[in-house]
Amino acid sequence: MLYLVGLGLSSVEDITVSGLKAVKQCSRVYLEHYTSILMSASQAELEEFYGKSVTLADREMVESGCEEILRGANSEDVAFLVVGDPFGATTHTDLVLRAKQQNIPVKVFHNASVMNAIGACGLQLYNFGQTVSMVFFHETWRPDSWYDKILANRKIGLHTLVLLDIKVKEQSYENMARGRLIYEPPRYMSISQCCEQLLEVDEKKSIKAYTPDTPCVAVSRLGSPTEAFKAGTIQELANYDAGEPLHSLIILGSQCHELELEYLLDFCDDREKFKKDVAKDREYFKPEPVMIEEDPEEEEE
Amino acid sequence: MLYLVGLGLSSVEDITVSGLKAVKQCSRVYLEHYTSILMSASQAELEEFYGKSVTLADREMVESGCEEILRGANSEDVAFLVVGDPFGATTHTDLVLRAKQQNIPVKVFHNASVMNAIGACGLQLYNFGQTVSMVFFHETWRPDSWYDKILANRKIGLHTLVLLDIKVKEQSYENMARGRLIYEPPRYMSISQCCEQLLEVDEKKSIKAYTPDTPCVAVSRLGSPTEAFKAGTIQELANYDAGEPLHSLIILGSQCHELELEYLLDFCDDREKFKKDVAKDREYFKPEPVMIEEDPEEEEE
Repeated sequence: MLYLVGLGLSSVEDITVSGLKAVKQCSRVYLEHYTSILMSASQAELEEFYGKSVTLADREMVESGCEEILRGANSEDVAFLVVGDPFGATTHTDLVLRAKQQNIPVKVFHNASVMNAIGACGLQLYNFGQTVSMVFFHETWRPDSWYDKILANRKIGLHTLVLLDIKVKEQSYENMARGRLIYEPPRYMSISQCCEQLLEVDEKKSIKAYTPDTPCVAVSRLGSPTEAFKAGTIQELANYDAGEPLHSLIILGSQCHELELEYLLDFCDDREKFKKDVAKDREYFKPEPVMIEEDPEEEEE
Repeated sequence: MLYLVGLGLSSVEDITVSGLKAVKQCSRVYLEHYTSILMSASQAELEEFYGKSVTLADREMVESGCEEILRGANSEDVAFLVVGDPFGATTHTDLVLRAKQQNIPVKVFHNASVMNAIGACGLQLYNFGQTVSMVFFHETWRPDSWYDKILANRKIGLHTLVLLDIKVKEQSYENMARGRLIYEPPRYMSISQCCEQLLEVDEKKSIKAYTPDTPCVAVSRLGSPTEAFKAGTIQELANYDAGEPLHSLIILGSQCHELELEYLLDFCDDREKFKKDVAKDREYFKPEPVMIEEDPEEEEE
């Protein structure tokens, strides 16, 4: 049996009771280790908590070498641990498809992921549109396909969750070119860097998906003991030091309800200013005023 | 301290290890009992598992009588249990706001909810638009505000998660009028009933958000041992018996990727027909072909 086990967001104890039982009966345990990290738990702490050794699975192992993970899973139990939920921000449907092809039964243990726990900031999950990813800009590579998605969400009044890039076990171009297996230290995009990239791309565009004054919520270390929320405009959050990773950002949509707003006010430096920013931002993408057309048939009468 | 504890989707053991620890140290435990149910656990089983008595909290108690729940939470620990995540489909921000007003510290234990666990059907959470709720139609009350939301999602190619109505502890009009505290048996909307309501409203509309041939995924008992997925058109699923509750439905968007489609094919009665239905549905809301406008300045030259 292959167990896909969501670990939740922060500590070793955020696993479910049922998930923990499954892990404890496995002969091999892998931890997906390239799309997210468990904020308050090291590999050693996980191993102690499970009473088992845990193998870190990098992108190569999962994407090209499912074989290693699935080996013998017909006759013994193997666990594949995923931070958050196994079908959260990064889905592992490929691994499941391969297991199915080999007639290996699969059981999933769901858990919280950023995709639903984000509701803790007080915004309703119902009012979110599509989620986007923000990757680190490089000298020559500054992808902005997320821009049109934010625009589409904002046009219909919806909030946008922006997931920020994580680089774990990344090689420098030089080391990659020379075939040296030397990895760079992990990098996690900060809220301020994300906001700077938002502002940079905004400047280039003619149709405005947002402005520097668009209200946002900065979310840091969601689900951990040091979780923090900060509400402010993109411009303000470009100068906000959110501390340790992981960070996410929510760009508000104009459908922001009064109860949502009330909740956010606790996270503002200046409540009155934030209220004004929200009111001003609501004017963007406002539907055209409805013109009551005269009925041509009535005119004829 | 007020603990908001997500219970996950199905069994008593779907609570997190950290959440369970918190519940065990509480002097009072309430279970939110009007927006969802834990599919494979009774109140008695929860009480045995926690070693505590659990009070069922209905809508009246939560919405009008937070007092009862928050009483003494300054000096003792009180748990408020929510099926799924405390900020999932139904948020309990109001309870948190009231606790804050009374200077009662709040701690949240997140868990899986339908809003993220739905990824188990193979569709990417990134490709979902706003979630909608489908309520039971009555003789005189057939609300369809969800229609425009599905339309907005489908116009930009996104999937729509449809959450189906649950009626727990509902009074008949007669009993309500006469002030008799007699409650109807619980009712859970089925996938077939949801599809019938979709078809009924579709018939009335001139701008089509979907057609009877639009592909969907029926999701039943998500996260439980009898979880099931069925892919088919709205018309087909209107005749599908999905068995015991809880049910949800996903209406596909045209952005359905090949890997998503491959995963869904396992849930079809007729794979070739479903592929054709998806291909046909992709023609709806297709962007207009791009006309390259001649540059007027160039013409002038």
